[in-house]
Amino acid sequence: MKKKVVIVGMGFGGLSAAKSLSKLGYDVVMVDKHNYHLFQPLLYQVATAGLEQESIAYPIRALARNWQGASFRLGEVSAVDFEARTITLEDGQLCYDYLVLAVGSRTNFFGMQSVERHAFDLKSLAQSEQLRNHILIQFEKASREQDRVRRAALLTFVIVGGGPTGVEFAGALRELSRYVLSRDYPEIAVSETRIVLVEAANSLLTAMEPHLRDYAAHKLRNMGVEILFSTQVVDATAELVLFKDGSSIATHTLFWSAGVAAAGLTGKLGVSLGGGGRIMVEPDLSIKGHPEVFVIGDAACLEQDGKPLPMMAPIASQQGRYVARALQARQEGITPPPFRYRDKGCMATIGRSSAVASTHGYTFSGFLAWVVWLLLHLYYLIGFRNRLLVVMNWGYYYFFHERQVRLITGESHK
Amino acid sequence: MKKKVVIVGMGFGGLSAAKSLSKLGYDVVMVDKHNYHLFQPLLYQVATAGLEQESIAYPIRALARNWQGASFRLGEVSAVDFEARTITLEDGQLCYDYLVLAVGSRTNFFGMQSVERHAFDLKSLAQSEQLRNHILIQFEKASREQDRVRRAALLTFVIVGGGPTGVEFAGALRELSRYVLSRDYPEIAVSETRIVLVEAANSLLTAMEPHLRDYAAHKLRNMGVEILFSTQVVDATAELVLFKDGSSIATHTLFWSAGVAAAGLTGKLGVSLGGGGRIMVEPDLSIKGHPEVFVIGDAACLEQDGKPLPMMAPIASQQGRYVARALQARQEGITPPPFRYRDKGCMATIGRSSAVASTHGYTFSGFLAWVVWLLLHLYYLIGFRNRLLVVMNWGYYYFFHERQVRLITGESHK
Repeated sequence: MKKKVVIVGMGFGGLSAAKSLSKLGYDVVMVDKHNYHLFQPLLYQVATAGLEQESIAYPIRALARNWQGASFRLGEVSAVDFEARTITLEDGQLCYDYLVLAVGSRTNFFGMQSVERHAFDLKSLAQSEQLRNHILIQFEKASREQDRVRRAALLTFVIVGGGPTGVEFAGALRELSRYVLSRDYPEIAVSETRIVLVEAANSLLTAMEPHLRDYAAHKLRNMGVEILFSTQVVDATAELVLFKDGSSIATHTLFWSAGVAAAGLTGKLGVSLGGGGRIMVEPDLSIKGHPEVFVIGDAACLEQDGKPLPMMAPIASQQGRYVARALQARQEGITPPPFRYRDKGCMATIGRSSAVASTHGYTFSGFLAWVVWLLLHLYYLIGFRNRLLVVMNWGYYYFFHERQVRLITGESHK
Repeated sequence: MKKKVVIVGMGFGGLSAAKSLSKLGYDVVMVDKHNYHLFQPLLYQVATAGLEQESIAYPIRALARNWQGASFRLGEVSAVDFEARTITLEDGQLCYDYLVLAVGSRTNFFGMQSVERHAFDLKSLAQSEQLRNHILIQFEKASREQDRVRRAALLTFVIVGGGPTGVEFAGALRELSRYVLSRDYPEIAVSETRIVLVEAANSLLTAMEPHLRDYAAHKLRNMGVEILFSTQVVDATAELVLFKDGSSIATHTLFWSAGVAAAGLTGKLGVSLGGGGRIMVEPDLSIKGHPEVFVIGDAACLEQDGKPLPMMAPIASQQGRYVARALQARQEGITPPPFRYRDKGCMATIGRSSAVASTHGYTFSGFLAWVVWLLLHLYYLIGFRNRLLVVMNWGYYYFFHERQVRLITGESHK
């Protein structure tokens, strides 16, 4: 009888595990609280009116169709019984022979509840749509606000965290306001919109080479983004963000991308956790004492060369494929070699025609890096139609400086 | 000094009035509670996962940019002071020299509160997204429901109203379940999904020629849609719809397209109303005693050839253009000739390659009518990019029998 693998979470890790395992002939049950795979790296473009949400989501059942033995179960996992080998969903249980936990990460506000309450973060489609609506509403309100101080606060956007998400969001928001909204709102001068990128360290993109960090900061400042280095957020209200040195900025839009932690489920399983609530795993990504349970992606804590692997999509994908290879090795009676991440590099886009990238010791910046960023993101996006949609939107923006999706959706416009 | 025209509502009527009036050199203020024009005739395709919501909405400010003297104000109008010539929004007032009320219509449940509470209707983007989510969730639930009776109720969809919306929605839902979802849910047989179209009269599409009505009913039945004629809904719960003859159908999805009434604002203005809460207008579409106030589109009640004009997009568009002509005539000291609707025909699509249309005494059905329906809807859709998106989606569906937008969006999947 075929062994049943339950995979929880259909991000990059879960997806690559499902695909690889179904090829090996396992019965694969894919579980997710959403019915789609989300291409998270482009969420910031939905939030800045560059892409429609549908173009970065792909129905999981459309994948399951083509993968032998694969099926989908919509639901959120609340518990795992490692002894009985079952997982618990809202309305039932599933049993497994092997379990792959690929539950991903959530935003980490480091216990600052006021910040968590008032800040936006970007982990889901719904959040990206809410943020887009919110940004557009600030412009609508500002366009009819006569009071100078209130108007300035409406048009001030504070982004916390100088990692790839913060950098990309800051650049995209600046371009949205400068090229698109400036024409939509003739009553608002470009110089009135203020975008402030706040970073606790003294450089952006700390994972990258120093000259790329400098390039990114230089480029963003040239575009009109203010950057505050060595600045830490300590508190926030709906209309203010407060820093450790006692200074503050009046803003209605605080965007937080300064920390991630493993998804909440990891804390409920009674297994040992590492930093950021990530589950400690063995060199073959299984849980100690439970070789039939694997943890991959952001939720897994594995050290390589003396430090924990970061939370990044390529690592999750490689770990997903590794699980399939490890199970195959075990079947053949071989101890699987430990997982090792092959670093293919990292990159961030700053604006139209401008990005930074580093791979295998080579670094790129500017137009070439941007083209590579474009092509790689398209390559990893699932589905021919989604690719076409994204190409269309990007081409449209590139040539016409126009972003179509500046819609304030939802029941209320306030 | 230029005269200021305030136009409330940016549907087909408001839009055509704004465009025509800005050409004549008026200061035009466009007011809407949404920041986009919505192409309502295609809402049912969003609800049946055929189109993304962004492709049928167009930002009003993107239009205002190109229209001399036109501006946009986001807000919902709560009152009009005809003496002071002002309208009241949530956060301010606007004064006008001329006012055009193009506030459109809402769904009419004829006072049946239980039906209003439990039925879906299609007037907004948010509703179409909710309905899409709901339909997909029924399939998810059914796929894991073992109880035969409960499973049947989950897979039963009752559509009330045999007008164009009911017919188009029934056909599109049938195709979604037969061609797309049947492959997504191998655990659900096509024959398990039941789509019932309920009509109080004894034919569909009563505005059309008898042989087209018969064609539509025949075609829908061939596709597997059940049609109940001479059947009236009297009550509903979350899991049941009850008919006048005492019979009932167990369903979790009741869709209501059996009536429209003018938007709520019309009842608050202290002006005389006709059937369906529509404002009685003079032959030049102005309100009696207030020649500076025009009402157009669904909200206006005007008789032509002894009966009130129906609530249809082409009528609203013609009335919008008429208002501009009427104001121009008055400026030249001429009494404008009364408004007269030139009927260009009507049409409804039933399914892939199949529609009915009638124009100037000619009638079409089948493939040709469907092509005409396609081209006309594309023509009236605003924006090159939206057209491209829609063509892409339709082409994709036509050739691959695939609808991409089958995403369950929003915070919760329940």
